[in-house]
Amino acid sequence: MAGTEDITPEQVEREQAVYGPFTDVVRELVDATIRTRIDDAEARTIQDELAAIVARMRTRQLDGAYAVNNRGRHWGNTVVGLRNAVAPPLHIDRESTGRVWSSFHLGAAYEGPPGLVHGGVSALVLDQLLGEASGAGGRPGMTASLTLTYRRATPLGDLRGEAWIERTEGIKTWARGHLSDAEGITVEAEGLFILPRWAREAAESTPPTFE
Amino acid sequence: MAGTEDITPEQVEREQAVYGPFTDVVRELVDATIRTRIDDAEARTIQDELAAIVARMRTRQLDGAYAVNNRGRHWGNTVVGLRNAVAPPLHIDRESTGRVWSSFHLGAAYEGPPGLVHGGVSALVLDQLLGEASGAGGRPGMTASLTLTYRRATPLGDLRGEAWIERTEGIKTWARGHLSDAEGITVEAEGLFILPRWAREAAESTPPTFE
Repeated sequence: MAGTEDITPEQVEREQAVYGPFTDVVRELVDATIRTRIDDAEARTIQDELAAIVARMRTRQLDGAYAVNNRGRHWGNTVVGLRNAVAPPLHIDRESTGRVWSSFHLGAAYEGPPGLVHGGVSALVLDQLLGEASGAGGRPGMTASLTLTYRRATPLGDLRGEAWIERTEGIKTWARGHLSDAEGITVEAEGLFILPRWAREAAESTPPTFE
Repeated sequence: MAGTEDITPEQVEREQAVYGPFTDVVRELVDATIRTRIDDAEARTIQDELAAIVARMRTRQLDGAYAVNNRGRHWGNTVVGLRNAVAPPLHIDRESTGRVWSSFHLGAAYEGPPGLVHGGVSALVLDQLLGEASGAGGRPGMTASLTLTYRRATPLGDLRGEAWIERTEGIKTWARGHLSDAEGITVEAEGLFILPRWAREAAESTPPTFE
């Protein structure tokens, strides 16, 4: 297992250059799998081709999930992960005050009701944004509670999210945020983030890399 | 665009037989994209092969997302979608009382902190379960609000979720639920689900198929 300690900045950059574009193609494939109308015979042929590709990729792979093997890099993260085709992915901008924001696109893979973003996907994205706001403000934490208020339906397409720190008290950080489309806010969120004991102990030996 | 009206039960069954296994292979590819350690040259070769496959699949495809084109079928849904490789997918059992439950596995694609389920993924899954409970009880609705309480970290791996209707009042349904691992409950949720006006009007002409 290669930890962050064992890898040079050049290796990180090289992996990024390879797996950024690679994962974008896998995202395209996920979208095409939902939307394609090719005939069944062609679909079966492609399924066999994909199975063969997966077998080649699995000849040498991490034992387990990404962050377990690469602490400090979030490339496996479900919302922002460079190597995770489940992630849109979000590119999040941040200020040290704890304000974070992101513009992103949600396509067919994020559908709940017809043409609309799945309510749980809005929760997923907002959990990440509020957590990053907490981290950007210098107090990284895990979600202790999260409340979503759905003002109206969020359409699939181009969206924006932002979050900020509302207040802090010891190891607790309260953050707020929202998603919006071109017409305004669609979903609001507030959350409490707490740095758990195991993370506090780890933070004493090595500073968190996600600040 | 082929609506549910235009398609026979045999066609639905055939599509299921083709795209169930197909999408499972795409899920494997998503996992392998996170975890593979093949050399860079092989990764670039595979990227080109995948791009060619995507191009073949896109020669004939739906214009837009899945449920827009196939009302009543949830195969594009982010949590339960048969054709959506973002979805684990969850297979949800239900009783007409509104109790629903599901056993499922979350792998590398659902990671937040190292080795743990992303807090937002727990929210995503619970939103679907509470919404399905509301629907199973005869009152399908969209999420109006959702509150998650994280009791402890949820490990990646085999998990279980359940949800039930707490109470109803007119078009409003309050549902509750939780996720658990082998040791017990990790995340609790409560939500309010409301059938929006556009869905009520649609329901008057055609009964919702997700009851």
